[in-house]
Amino acid sequence: MIKAGIVGVAGYAGISILQILLAHPEAEVIWLSSEDSHAGKKISDIRPSFNGICDLVCQKSGDLSKFVDQTDVVFMALPNGLAMKLSPMFLEKRKKVIDISADFRIKDLEEYKKWYKIDHLSPNLVADATYGLPELFFEKIKTSSLIANPGCYPTASILGIAPLLKNNLVDVNSIVIDAKSGVSGAGAALTEITHFPECNENFRAYAVASHRHNPEIDQILSWISNTKINTTFVPHLVPMNRGILATIYANLIQKITNEKLHEIFKNFYKKAPFVRVLELGKLPATKYVYGSNFCDINVVLDERANKVIVLSAIDNLIKGAAGQAVQNMNIMFGLDERAGLDKSPVYP
Amino acid sequence: MIKAGIVGVAGYAGISILQILLAHPEAEVIWLSSEDSHAGKKISDIRPSFNGICDLVCQKSGDLSKFVDQTDVVFMALPNGLAMKLSPMFLEKRKKVIDISADFRIKDLEEYKKWYKIDHLSPNLVADATYGLPELFFEKIKTSSLIANPGCYPTASILGIAPLLKNNLVDVNSIVIDAKSGVSGAGAALTEITHFPECNENFRAYAVASHRHNPEIDQILSWISNTKINTTFVPHLVPMNRGILATIYANLIQKITNEKLHEIFKNFYKKAPFVRVLELGKLPATKYVYGSNFCDINVVLDERANKVIVLSAIDNLIKGAAGQAVQNMNIMFGLDERAGLDKSPVYP
Amino acid sequence: MIKAGIVGVAGYAGISILQILLAHPEAEVIWLSSEDSHAGKKISDIRPSFNGICDLVCQKSGDLSKFVDQTDVVFMALPNGLAMKLSPMFLEKRKKVIDISADFRIKDLEEYKKWYKIDHLSPNLVADATYGLPELFFEKIKTSSLIANPGCYPTASILGIAPLLKNNLVDVNSIVIDAKSGVSGAGAALTEITHFPECNENFRAYAVASHRHNPEIDQILSWISNTKINTTFVPHLVPMNRGILATIYANLIQKITNEKLHEIFKNFYKKAPFVRVLELGKLPATKYVYGSNFCDINVVLDERANKVIVLSAIDNLIKGAAGQAVQNMNIMFGLDERAGLDKSPVYP
Amino acid sequence: MIKAGIVGVAGYAGISILQILLAHPEAEVIWLSSEDSHAGKKISDIRPSFNGICDLVCQKSGDLSKFVDQTDVVFMALPNGLAMKLSPMFLEKRKKVIDISADFRIKDLEEYKKWYKIDHLSPNLVADATYGLPELFFEKIKTSSLIANPGCYPTASILGIAPLLKNNLVDVNSIVIDAKSGVSGAGAALTEITHFPECNENFRAYAVASHRHNPEIDQILSWISNTKINTTFVPHLVPMNRGILATIYANLIQKITNEKLHEIFKNFYKKAPFVRVLELGKLPATKYVYGSNFCDINVVLDERANKVIVLSAIDNLIKGAAGQAVQNMNIMFGLDERAGLDKSPVYP
Repeated sequence: MIKAGIVGVAGYAGISILQILLAHPEAEVIWLSSEDSHAGKKISDIRPSFNGICDLVCQKSGDLSKFVDQTDVVFMALPNGLAMKLSPMFLEKRKKVIDISADFRIKDLEEYKKWYKIDHLSPNLVADATYGLPELFFEKIKTSSLIANPGCYPTASILGIAPLLKNNLVDVNSIVIDAKSGVSGAGAALTEITHFPECNENFRAYAVASHRHNPEIDQILSWISNTKINTTFVPHLVPMNRGILATIYANLIQKITNEKLHEIFKNFYKKAPFVRVLELGKLPATKYVYGSNFCDINVVLDERANKVIVLSAIDNLIKGAAGQAVQNMNIMFGLDERAGLDKSPVYP
Repeated sequence: MIKAGIVGVAGYAGISILQILLAHPEAEVIWLSSEDSHAGKKISDIRPSFNGICDLVCQKSGDLSKFVDQTDVVFMALPNGLAMKLSPMFLEKRKKVIDISADFRIKDLEEYKKWYKIDHLSPNLVADATYGLPELFFEKIKTSSLIANPGCYPTASILGIAPLLKNNLVDVNSIVIDAKSGVSGAGAALTEITHFPECNENFRAYAVASHRHNPEIDQILSWISNTKINTTFVPHLVPMNRGILATIYANLIQKITNEKLHEIFKNFYKKAPFVRVLELGKLPATKYVYGSNFCDINVVLDERANKVIVLSAIDNLIKGAAGQAVQNMNIMFGLDERAGLDKSPVYP
Repeated sequence: MIKAGIVGVAGYAGISILQILLAHPEAEVIWLSSEDSHAGKKISDIRPSFNGICDLVCQKSGDLSKFVDQTDVVFMALPNGLAMKLSPMFLEKRKKVIDISADFRIKDLEEYKKWYKIDHLSPNLVADATYGLPELFFEKIKTSSLIANPGCYPTASILGIAPLLKNNLVDVNSIVIDAKSGVSGAGAALTEITHFPECNENFRAYAVASHRHNPEIDQILSWISNTKINTTFVPHLVPMNRGILATIYANLIQKITNEKLHEIFKNFYKKAPFVRVLELGKLPATKYVYGSNFCDINVVLDERANKVIVLSAIDNLIKGAAGQAVQNMNIMFGLDERAGLDKSPVYP
Repeated sequence: MIKAGIVGVAGYAGISILQILLAHPEAEVIWLSSEDSHAGKKISDIRPSFNGICDLVCQKSGDLSKFVDQTDVVFMALPNGLAMKLSPMFLEKRKKVIDISADFRIKDLEEYKKWYKIDHLSPNLVADATYGLPELFFEKIKTSSLIANPGCYPTASILGIAPLLKNNLVDVNSIVIDAKSGVSGAGAALTEITHFPECNENFRAYAVASHRHNPEIDQILSWISNTKINTTFVPHLVPMNRGILATIYANLIQKITNEKLHEIFKNFYKKAPFVRVLELGKLPATKYVYGSNFCDINVVLDERANKVIVLSAIDNLIKGAAGQAVQNMNIMFGLDERAGLDKSPVYP
């Protein structure tokens, strides 16, 4: 059994990792850590869903050094700026680290500082880290010790755009990503925008053309296409708990049928167990991936305007965070990619 | 007092017209009509909100000829294809008709047939009808007898795009409209997609690049810019009752600052009492227009990608249907445009 | 025109009072006050729904003395414990005060202290204050200067129970009130329980048999029946913004038909313009009173168990707070009770 | 491996059974059946969540005879009145049947007819059937071939009341059950009441003192207490997908502390793996059991009114239907009761 620790377990990504690992056939959680105010409390007292399921007590993050030796892998589910401090201790002892935050995602440290307002403390680790999107970087993940787990929006967006770029189908300067997320994506911290009466019966955009996931998306797309890409990215808040739908638009640079586009997508993901390219004409919906590690995708040709439209749906907490983290763990430890992640979406 | 009748009063648009007219200082509702199964029932028995407020009985649409003489204006809130049959009777007696359906919106009858699968029965009326978007066609509405009340998506979209086109700011072939609507936009008829457990905790696109509001939008934008425009239009369903947010993208064809763009929008709508161009940097949200006739708009420059992003929010049942219909009535009868429409949005 | 001020305008009750008064034919709002952090800001900057509708600037509550002379009536929409400090200044100048908080509701000061943990600073005012439930205390309200506006749960509960007690139909020791409220009832302050992902797709009870509205309900019911009543009261949180439904149970102490029960309720409220006793067999729903000052009520006989069940629905922010406050103002100033409150519920 | 068939798989209970069995370590689904209009379609075409997970084709219910021999257990998830027709064919060949409908729940056939308006076709089977509430009838279930799986409301209600009755703590004539359910409890069939805009932002009671689950509850409670019990039962519809909370009230017939009451509940369920009696003072919420087979319970003393209040929360589709059905299957086949049912609730 792989021995895992989770830092930041009380947040929505952290608790989702716990949920998945508790049912994982080849991993076990041996310690938990959360913010200091939770230290000494059972996770089931903080998150009552876990009553009778997991009674592990939360450790202070300052006390984790004593757990390093017995740990095989650590999941860091912390606010940005903290994983860069806690990770070296584990990596030095040749333990594996999977970081859910943005700390190791952006290779260009100035770009990181510009968007996150944080001076990076571990620049070498940024260079070493692997961007953990298995559908694109499977081989690198296999041999990596430090995974920068992709953001939720980037996961949905990049999976939707990659086949277009790899096949030179679109004008790289024309990409628009209009993304919509359930409210758990904003985390467990209280804010006015996520106060129920403000959020319910409301729909809004936020961080228009200024969201931190924009440079992350652009970095990966630029790698794929070997050219600097600046996408337009607008996130929106949907009054529901879970799910992201990204609607992606780009100008076609060649004549192509919808059938051919669909075939290209089908082919691109034929070996990816978690990407479901739907039948031609069927549309993704966040409900169909609810609680699962799937990404449902389809592609629609807009002949009138000579544009391609890609729809990409994930559960932001699973494929967009915890599920993908466990998928990365599986790959790093040589397990079947799907171990512990094979459950059906919750419906209805 | 203006004497008004409402056909199709039990639908969501019809009932919203009733709601507004009941509080209108210069109009009164003298008869109602609904589908035949409602004939003889009080509207308050069909829609219990109206208990003790309005006890008018629903007439069969086949029995309306007897009301023509005493009526000044009729609101048609029917499925497509019916207003073209009922309107001539009123128009011949020089009564005014405001049609909420699509019957008189599309000037090109072949285009109408292509999208709506209906042979038009009153082609002459289509030519006579005025597209009732007061912010663009105020003068024509004043003297018109037949109003084609705009669709909900077209209202939000056109109001967002018009200032860009009128000022030649964007590439007319680059326009993408990503629109999101609350579920009342789909009407009161039962469908699987609007069954609560399917719709709640779900977000989906539908009619991707194939929605009937697409040619309506394109017709008006083409008028504005004197060139044939094909926008890309994708509607989405938001798990909430009311509200539309349209996020609009276009390529800028000149260098411009966000301040200048904002000023252009402010200026464009300076005499429009129901369009609120928000302060620079503030974003619309559907909640802030809930239950009101406002359209909240702002414009954001995406410098990285040289695109302009416009956000436009309305209540789909008010500015997107019933409120705009009453605004048109006010203009047609020489009243203050705002009569009966001056109430604050419902918050929270 | 009645000149009104609102203290605590940024809260959900305060903002609802503003909304109603802006459309009131015989009152105008001449000043607003909110928490100190809002001082100097326009209400439309704090609550963007009010853009272009009301641009009054919020005053500090410490600066209100200068407004006393020009004010006819003050609405206090503050956390408990503050109205008792601010009210004397207005009352001494013979201005009228309508307090939305609990400060003047509980006549027994020890009981007040026991439930609210506050030492009362104005015991004399408690004695002077009138409990502002117009359906029961209309005559007293007419001549009163200080109104203790009822709590939201007490409004729905007492209106449902009063006809039973006045007619000696039930065992006074058997009353159970199972009440359900939308989340705006919990106010605008951020709490974990009202964080969207915790609250949405969740239903829970809270303050079981220990809610502060319990002694308030019991005080009024005891007045009505001239005997000490202890009801059992359990509130619940519904994942929606607005609305309260109280389901009330009591043991019948005589044989009676449902028709007769219904007639008693009809008769009891025959002069109350805002209580709608529905037709026999029809059930209230919070949607049918949404945004309105109505209380919809019906009574059902449970013959198998010899119990009576009363269902009572209000909008917690209108009849349960702001609407009732304005109704009280209307009565205090000799206006028609319905002035400014005659709008239809918002539907759907 | 146990070979299972599911009849009525496209409904919400049926699809939930499929979901659970797909992940069950000792059972496999070998055939599916649904309404005739689905015959020949893959379940993944009807319910797209199952894309790539289960591609079994739906059979007509008229064609099931050919599957009898190879089947070990059949789950009947049909509208009332159908399982009584389909079950004999399986039972005669000594196969096990677990029926989710009400067909075999009510032992008194006149009572069944009175509430369900159906003449029973298999009276003998009613006598043979075991009421499948494992916490009360474990031993009978073990040896039974035909299980009447309890209704969702009865499950939550009976589990909450049983400890009170078994310990003679309450007046059996005083029991009030105020129950609230998510909308999936109303099923997948389209109705006006479950149309999103009618249901969202709404809270209502329905079938007040006349719901079919009332006689079911009373039958079981009467067995427990050896006396005829008539509870008062009022169900309500909560605008959420899943979850039931029952709030139960009864008059205490002896002095007792809350601590003692709590101990009695703890003790009563000490061997029940799916009933979690929460710590004293903590309250159940439907979210904490979401998607799981748990029933969370707590008991609160209302000293002022000398009443006991029990709160009981389940997921209506899992412990209230599909999960309990699989729990019964596990018991009937001698497996660990928890097999396939050990996953954590979905949170948030």
